[in-house]
Amino acid sequence: MAASNLNRRQLVTVVGGALGGGIAGALFASDNKPKEGPPSSGAETKPAPATTPWPYHALDPDVTAERAFVGYSKAHCMYGAFEAVLGQLGEKYGDPYKSFPVAMMKYGAGGVNGWATLCGALNGGAAAIQLLSPDPNPLIDEMFVWYDKEALPDYVSKAAKYPNVPSVSGSPLCHISISNWCVKTGKKSFAPERNERCALIAASVARHVAFQLNKQAEGTKLVSALPQEAAGCMTCHEKGSALENARTKMTCPQCHFHLGTEHPKA
Amino acid sequence: MAASNLNRRQLVTVVGGALGGGIAGALFASDNKPKEGPPSSGAETKPAPATTPWPYHALDPDVTAERAFVGYSKAHCMYGAFEAVLGQLGEKYGDPYKSFPVAMMKYGAGGVNGWATLCGALNGGAAAIQLLSPDPNPLIDEMFVWYDKEALPDYVSKAAKYPNVPSVSGSPLCHISISNWCVKTGKKSFAPERNERCALIAASVARHVAFQLNKQAEGTKLVSALPQEAAGCMTCHEKGSALENARTKMTCPQCHFHLGTEHPKA
Repeated sequence: MAASNLNRRQLVTVVGGALGGGIAGALFASDNKPKEGPPSSGAETKPAPATTPWPYHALDPDVTAERAFVGYSKAHCMYGAFEAVLGQLGEKYGDPYKSFPVAMMKYGAGGVNGWATLCGALNGGAAAIQLLSPDPNPLIDEMFVWYDKEALPDYVSKAAKYPNVPSVSGSPLCHISISNWCVKTGKKSFAPERNERCALIAASVARHVAFQLNKQAEGTKLVSALPQEAAGCMTCHEKGSALENARTKMTCPQCHFHLGTEHPKA
Repeated sequence: MAASNLNRRQLVTVVGGALGGGIAGALFASDNKPKEGPPSSGAETKPAPATTPWPYHALDPDVTAERAFVGYSKAHCMYGAFEAVLGQLGEKYGDPYKSFPVAMMKYGAGGVNGWATLCGALNGGAAAIQLLSPDPNPLIDEMFVWYDKEALPDYVSKAAKYPNVPSVSGSPLCHISISNWCVKTGKKSFAPERNERCALIAASVARHVAFQLNKQAEGTKLVSALPQEAAGCMTCHEKGSALENARTKMTCPQCHFHLGTEHPKA
């Protein structure tokens, strides 16, 4: 394995791991409330709309989550996660947030118009992070690792109709996230319970994004460990390897659970 | 197989198939030039920024492609594809296009910050379509099918440094698109040739988006056939099937090329 890959995969999750399940609720309640006062990144004047990042103003993660849950019912997962952040900023601080065409984020629904590629909540979350963070890459990586490893949803709206059993997606892909939920719950992929689960995934992701942006604005560095399951595969297939015929940070066995007899023994 | 799936997968490609290889060039040259005159969707007044779609004004697909190629070198694939469309509109028509924070699209690079999920060019292309089209869903589907099936790039900049061999992605996922390119070309996934190939994929996608938006503004309906390779799988796994434990429009065997002995004979 190339040294760069070893380092990449041996990073330690500092924040992502601490956000899962019941622990997360306690952490959020005591540690994650936005501070009152001036905007966290100094927006005394209106930012120039065409340049990024736009100044971030601290948001309440639970309020953000609930707004995403409601937003999902209007235009699905990507819109729900993104609008929960931008819509709040628009209501509180006006332009340029208010003029952002949040409705465009509808395209990410169901992994982009039902193609089940990238989870729309992650797509919307990453878009919000890139728009609002002065150092977005560590947050996007941390969010993807958290989504991959944690049992989600970790936020359930009081308006939820069904018992929501958390499941581990194992992947940032909509297709895998949903199938693993089907395995965990025994429910069908187009059942109303799955629809509500995805609304709560959008809520959980939006809550995590608000948490991340709050933390970063406070000066806390978020670090995450990329999936370890692919480490063996990477020694032959990723950057710096003999074959170097792939590119990914995803967990290989989620798709390639059977390698066939022509593949060397792993 | 459920009737809804049969219908979905038996649609006929009207435009997507005609855009591949050398035929595409001829079609674009004779048929795809934007018409001179007033904006194609009637933007006599400035649109309200927060609402969508924003009016579309016809763009030259080849100019759009070249701009995406250049844009890729600034902020990668999603930015390249998206900015090629929005940046031109901003230069020609001012706001709201000009104030759109196009730099936010950097997040889609390498399937979102190198995760190799959704191809960033498609992510940016779909975002542009949703922002500018009054009926985006058929265009997004047609673009994904075209990207899946066609040998790409179908546009090569005069500034390209390497011989660019077209390859069929077989998938909207960055990871698979790149690995299939590696198989086709014998080049490595982090080689400079792959970097240029992805710049030309962004260019090809941006060109296709301009073509699609031009056609739709002229009143031409674009129809596409979803991948057939998954039809057998869908009879057990998709909506309305006995298991109904998956969701996708992707081509299953691109990931699940070995099903293992525990899976019933397909």
